[in-house]
Amino acid sequence: MRYKLIISYIGENYSGFQKQLDKLTIQETLEKALTEVTREQISVVASGRTDAGVSAFKQVCHFDVIDEINTQRTIGYCNRLLPEDIRILGIEKVEEDFHARYSAKEKTYEYYFYRGSESPIYDKFATYIGYNVNIDDMKYACNYFLGEHDFSAFCASNTEVKTKVRKILDIKIIDVDECLFKLSITGNGFLYNMVRIIMGTLVSVGLGKILIEDISDIIKSKDRNKSGKTMPSKGLYLKNVMY
Amino acid sequence: MRYKLIISYIGENYSGFQKQLDKLTIQETLEKALTEVTREQISVVASGRTDAGVSAFKQVCHFDVIDEINTQRTIGYCNRLLPEDIRILGIEKVEEDFHARYSAKEKTYEYYFYRGSESPIYDKFATYIGYNVNIDDMKYACNYFLGEHDFSAFCASNTEVKTKVRKILDIKIIDVDECLFKLSITGNGFLYNMVRIIMGTLVSVGLGKILIEDISDIIKSKDRNKSGKTMPSKGLYLKNVMY
Repeated sequence: MRYKLIISYIGENYSGFQKQLDKLTIQETLEKALTEVTREQISVVASGRTDAGVSAFKQVCHFDVIDEINTQRTIGYCNRLLPEDIRILGIEKVEEDFHARYSAKEKTYEYYFYRGSESPIYDKFATYIGYNVNIDDMKYACNYFLGEHDFSAFCASNTEVKTKVRKILDIKIIDVDECLFKLSITGNGFLYNMVRIIMGTLVSVGLGKILIEDISDIIKSKDRNKSGKTMPSKGLYLKNVMY
Repeated sequence: MRYKLIISYIGENYSGFQKQLDKLTIQETLEKALTEVTREQISVVASGRTDAGVSAFKQVCHFDVIDEINTQRTIGYCNRLLPEDIRILGIEKVEEDFHARYSAKEKTYEYYFYRGSESPIYDKFATYIGYNVNIDDMKYACNYFLGEHDFSAFCASNTEVKTKVRKILDIKIIDVDECLFKLSITGNGFLYNMVRIIMGTLVSVGLGKILIEDISDIIKSKDRNKSGKTMPSKGLYLKNVMY
């Protein structure tokens, strides 16, 4: 039978979600705990991998077991085994055809960033973008990404996928505090490094290096060299996965 | 001559601001760096000590030197010597009668807290107050603390000061995110543990353990046993010092 697993984690100390030889990953840490508690060999499938350093407020996975499990007890035992930076928020039984990755309809990512004086406090979880950056321009520029586009200009150039067309359903910059902001972006799917490159492009807009009115042309160009740089993984959070 | 020093720090790895034998403190770390860079024996005086684990978005200090210093170079060199969790944001020459502590007119503290599911991300900088806590009640309860009161019921019981009368100029709870909030409190001065006990009392209100209409009586009682518990230092931040 199949279970849906909702987790949250801080990516800082891990080489990303996906299992890798000789590297500490979220997946491996999670599977070890689930395997110990359920006494079955557990493999988890996530809605998508997150890169090294990327955190998740909410990541959704699924796993299969032969014997039914007590979900509340499994959550409790696993959380005691897991390191403090990975928490299981929920486990629930789902239909066999539920798939954490293929059933996902939308995802929301957030990117935390700040301007003004450098702050050791914000530096722990957000990316510094400079003293004087025009946030209003960045906010306005968000609108150009809305809708369905070929995002070839906004993914790592070695990305190999069938299509680079994705639909952005919502994108906005929200004031969190006087100098702290977050980009919130919801789409039907995201290409490799897509949020970090969109964010880098918005920062270029805020610095006056890219003009707002050029964004449509950059999208149309499908040329990775025309968009902004890939921002650090530190400020990036998987916020939600919708099914 | 006297200089005003503006700093920011994460309290997590320090035994508070004030120098102590055999313990790592912000003051000692700061004085070491300033002494090395200025080549004078520097003592810093802060607007007030912050406890172990308490962070500061902005803390103000002063220090005296015999020879004039190049402020920009001093900031740059010190920040290279200082650990990443302490940053000098500014140094400026001030009148000899400026005193970081005695000249301070108002201070603002913030206390970050969250409800709902436990979050490893929020746990890094905010205090968890439970799954279901009535934030609206907490928001309304803030009003009872406004104005000038004897805050004997809201300070550590061993506090010895001339008067426990303080004036709260502003106090409110602000929504930071869906489940994340901050208490922002501005006053002409704060007693030992005062913000953490006010916060604990507000949490008791949110949990229905203290009634909003009883807060005035608790203040009048001057009895530490009637107020809420002292909340952990982790969520507490010195936000600003006004002169």
